[in-house]
Amino acid sequence: MQLLKEKIITEGYALSHEVVKVDSFLNHQIDPIFMMEIGKEFHRLFKDENITKILTIEASGIAIGSFVAYNFGLPLVFAKKTKSRNLDKETYCSKVFSFTKQVTTDIQVSKKYISPDDNILIIDDFLANGKALNGLIDIVSQAGATVGGIGIVIEKGFQPGGKDIRSKGYNLKSLAIIKEMEKGKIVFE
Amino acid sequence: MQLLKEKIITEGYALSHEVVKVDSFLNHQIDPIFMMEIGKEFHRLFKDENITKILTIEASGIAIGSFVAYNFGLPLVFAKKTKSRNLDKETYCSKVFSFTKQVTTDIQVSKKYISPDDNILIIDDFLANGKALNGLIDIVSQAGATVGGIGIVIEKGFQPGGKDIRSKGYNLKSLAIIKEMEKGKIVFE
Repeated sequence: MQLLKEKIITEGYALSHEVVKVDSFLNHQIDPIFMMEIGKEFHRLFKDENITKILTIEASGIAIGSFVAYNFGLPLVFAKKTKSRNLDKETYCSKVFSFTKQVTTDIQVSKKYISPDDNILIIDDFLANGKALNGLIDIVSQAGATVGGIGIVIEKGFQPGGKDIRSKGYNLKSLAIIKEMEKGKIVFE
Repeated sequence: MQLLKEKIITEGYALSHEVVKVDSFLNHQIDPIFMMEIGKEFHRLFKDENITKILTIEASGIAIGSFVAYNFGLPLVFAKKTKSRNLDKETYCSKVFSFTKQVTTDIQVSKKYISPDDNILIIDDFLANGKALNGLIDIVSQAGATVGGIGIVIEKGFQPGGKDIRSKGYNLKSLAIIKEMEKGKIVFE
């Protein structure tokens, strides 16, 4: 997606060979007009897949997932990372290690919100090692539902997540794939 | 907002005299078409307040805040509850106690994303004791910015947050105020 690549170059910044900052428009401050374009693009890419529901993970996935869900006219479900006394007792649960935060977290989705009939489009902001994504796929699988597609905003092509997920046969589409980067410089595939 | 009250009655459920479950459309599963209506309503209520930016808090606030920001055509900033090595070192920080989760959390916003010129519309899903809201007001105040308005989806009118915030002179508007509830029954003001 050319508009996204331009936004990453003009408003983002490579902090190192691993970390790209896009918090001015994607994961701390949100540009909602741009997000609507992201939502339209994912709809264009997956509109023929008979998707029944969008699934993402808190927190950064929620804004993107909301605009994707709006364009599909379908519900969004977001997996929860934190325990809450208000969450249903009956949940699908998977363990996810975050390299960014250096902790393992239980992610949970109430059993009410994914059924075996669902064909799920999974949406997330980043794909690097694929830990969060594998947790979401695990939850869809526990529910007996199918993964109809996976949409990622920014994939770090130099990390193993994308290759791993594609090798398993999933229909994964990333709007921008970073081939390599170093401080101050980003190269796309 | 009549549409919201109907949605709370038909799809929500009072678990006790304190806890209302609305996770089928507001804070676990999201109905994006309905959320767009929420966004339009907050825009109608605050469009004359010269708002420059929308502020909310992860996670549940993000979906609502996204649709509000879209209707204003303004950026959304969401305060972060978790430490991340990718967050800027320079942040405004406030401590918030969550009754739902029974923990005190540091909430943070990068100093880059609120400036003294900003007139902020704060958006959140629930207002009960007002702890999260006071944390967000504190962050706006630390930045030297002004609070141009506060928009809440569901206020628990029988808890002290709303009265407390209004008594300080803030322009607080809640789309639905629950006067009282008991298991299976919700009464609006």
